[in-house]
Amino acid sequence: MSTRPTSSRRAFLSVSAATAAHVWIPGSVKGYSPREVASAVSGASANVGLSKWDLDTPALCVDLDRLESNIARMQVAVKRFGIATRPHAKTHKSADIAKMQLTAGAVGICTAKLGEAEALMAQGVDRICMTTGNLSPAKIRRAMQLRKQSAHFIQAVDTEQNARDLSAAALEAGVTADVVVDVAVGTRSGIAPGDGAVELAKLVDTLPGLTLRGLLAYDGGAQHINGFAEREARTLANIEPHAQVFETLKKAGLNTEVFSGGGTGTYNVQHLVPGFTDVQVGSYVFMDMQYLAIGGEDGNPVYSDFDPSLTVVATVLNNRFPPRLTTDAGAKAMTLNVPRAGVVGEPGAEYNAGSDEFGVITFANEPSKTYRIGDRLEMIVPHCDPVVNLYDVMYGIRKDRVERMIPVTARGKSQ
Amino acid sequence: MSTRPTSSRRAFLSVSAATAAHVWIPGSVKGYSPREVASAVSGASANVGLSKWDLDTPALCVDLDRLESNIARMQVAVKRFGIATRPHAKTHKSADIAKMQLTAGAVGICTAKLGEAEALMAQGVDRICMTTGNLSPAKIRRAMQLRKQSAHFIQAVDTEQNARDLSAAALEAGVTADVVVDVAVGTRSGIAPGDGAVELAKLVDTLPGLTLRGLLAYDGGAQHINGFAEREARTLANIEPHAQVFETLKKAGLNTEVFSGGGTGTYNVQHLVPGFTDVQVGSYVFMDMQYLAIGGEDGNPVYSDFDPSLTVVATVLNNRFPPRLTTDAGAKAMTLNVPRAGVVGEPGAEYNAGSDEFGVITFANEPSKTYRIGDRLEMIVPHCDPVVNLYDVMYGIRKDRVERMIPVTARGKSQ
Repeated sequence: MSTRPTSSRRAFLSVSAATAAHVWIPGSVKGYSPREVASAVSGASANVGLSKWDLDTPALCVDLDRLESNIARMQVAVKRFGIATRPHAKTHKSADIAKMQLTAGAVGICTAKLGEAEALMAQGVDRICMTTGNLSPAKIRRAMQLRKQSAHFIQAVDTEQNARDLSAAALEAGVTADVVVDVAVGTRSGIAPGDGAVELAKLVDTLPGLTLRGLLAYDGGAQHINGFAEREARTLANIEPHAQVFETLKKAGLNTEVFSGGGTGTYNVQHLVPGFTDVQVGSYVFMDMQYLAIGGEDGNPVYSDFDPSLTVVATVLNNRFPPRLTTDAGAKAMTLNVPRAGVVGEPGAEYNAGSDEFGVITFANEPSKTYRIGDRLEMIVPHCDPVVNLYDVMYGIRKDRVERMIPVTARGKSQ
Repeated sequence: MSTRPTSSRRAFLSVSAATAAHVWIPGSVKGYSPREVASAVSGASANVGLSKWDLDTPALCVDLDRLESNIARMQVAVKRFGIATRPHAKTHKSADIAKMQLTAGAVGICTAKLGEAEALMAQGVDRICMTTGNLSPAKIRRAMQLRKQSAHFIQAVDTEQNARDLSAAALEAGVTADVVVDVAVGTRSGIAPGDGAVELAKLVDTLPGLTLRGLLAYDGGAQHINGFAEREARTLANIEPHAQVFETLKKAGLNTEVFSGGGTGTYNVQHLVPGFTDVQVGSYVFMDMQYLAIGGEDGNPVYSDFDPSLTVVATVLNNRFPPRLTTDAGAKAMTLNVPRAGVVGEPGAEYNAGSDEFGVITFANEPSKTYRIGDRLEMIVPHCDPVVNLYDVMYGIRKDRVERMIPVTARGKSQ
């Protein structure tokens, strides 16, 4: 996620316009808090029909039809490509959504942080691949406790010392740990591809506490490259040395049953890599302004393989300084990612969350309606992962009504 | 906080160098989680002497000596100016720190969101001024429940309709609500200064459920203006119409006992406004890279009236792609605010939290030491408010040892 997309204004405008049909904003709103909603939806009937426009704001909402459709669509696609999904929970941090993905056919769930893995496993998600190495003795021990709880727990390793430490901790815990070698794409995490990576895999294979399962090759930088052709070319060029590591390990008779990487931007490219097994797709469940802007395989500047399902409903606090509106969703509710949020149904709106508490919307052309103080509006989030991490709960919405509350199980688990 | 400071590289380097003396980074670290630390510090002796370098990372730490000194220094300063503090809890979101401020002499605590006010009052902080209007019927009723719990609760109002709604809700709750009129500085929130503001104050004074207490005039945009002279000039120019509103209300015999605004950037300017009563200072308790860069009254490019007390301790995950280091503190731990984090003791370091999970540090000149994988480093945060909002707990540190855990009481309360 390190590459910021160049913003394509035209793309966002089309997207905002395309989603406009879904918008209905009543004048009088109630403003129910999470506690009030919870007591309503936990009653005899889960579908109590509260309108999303009556939620206290800022409210993080996920459209369930779109969420389910995105998950199903991804599974159909990877099946066609002959690979699998191992969706990354860093995006949704939600046990409920992880379970939906597993039910749909995912082979496992990835986590970036040990705290995420612990939180999800405590909620019954046990097919977890920790894609980041755990370095401190305490973290290594905690990871081995997860392995003890679940035979399906897989841990990434990217240094020789860490492999030895992990093996010792596994033996101490009385388990044999399943391990994948994290091979760096770019310079962020992982061991560089080449002889070092091969040697590390061989070491893992020989250590008494570890079982080699294969390798990771996640290309975070490629996900947001604008334009499919360049995204595909760069992805395939970047992963070439990893494919060689894979071949070397395979020829040496080592276990290569996992060759995992890729994301929402390259899910339709990774299968071209020989031996590649599964994509660590995350954002496809929600989409966001960043992914909408990368462009699709069909040449459309808007990436429309998946539909934006995640929005923030906000309230207009001030309309007395046109062409500006002030809302109650600032940087603490929307992050400072670019491109900024898109206002649903308002192609001419520019959203700025530069203030912590307040959002400011300016209109290049006339808004679709006259916004009064207290009115609600809805925004597609700039970048889904860090926005979700700001909320304790997502409201699961169907046809603009609250159907269920989805806890953000691993919210704030950055450790 | 809407103005992004122009970054003064020289300023940050000096700051990093100045704080270098405090740094001691051992090679072998343990990585205790919040739960493990809590069980240790809740024992018979609160000062168990855990090193901050042994915390699981990313860890949000506040140096208690500096925190206490910042709070004391602010109180001494405003006393000299003949005004008071009403510190803004949007910065720290912590009941413990609010109580420290009240004990030191603050006349009250401000909150930006109703959820913050509820969370703090539930922890015994009852002298609260809600600086944002509550618009929905549910929020208005909840605010009046707070007023029912505490005679010291004050609510901001900025429209006639909202004043009438609030009065009705106050009567319904059986209370008379203390109200301040929020008069806009700039275009964000509040009613424009002038006749409209005066009329609104008069209306509040006549409504049966409300008691007028005065006015708010918070100049968020002025706080981060670089250079004291310009900051002072702009602050005084911006508030001129509000001073006239104040005079008009006073002459009309209306209650003007509260004339509140200002922040950490203008705490030493606001007393020049006739009738001004208190500053809503927030960031002074922690400081951050943004405030360090605004320059002091003494002409120093580093604003040094208060000392940076808030840091994030992170772990080096990768050192194999020099001159880069990868840490475990990305945008979900540090936000995307600019200027980016300053690495303590490393004047040549540039920190980039452009990735959600990982931070990347590059060195313009040689680092002070060779960083190994697993080593810790410490960073001054870019902008304290949104960083604090990412964590459930701050570690209270004295002389590099954990003394107490400070819950972020209102973390995530953006509603």
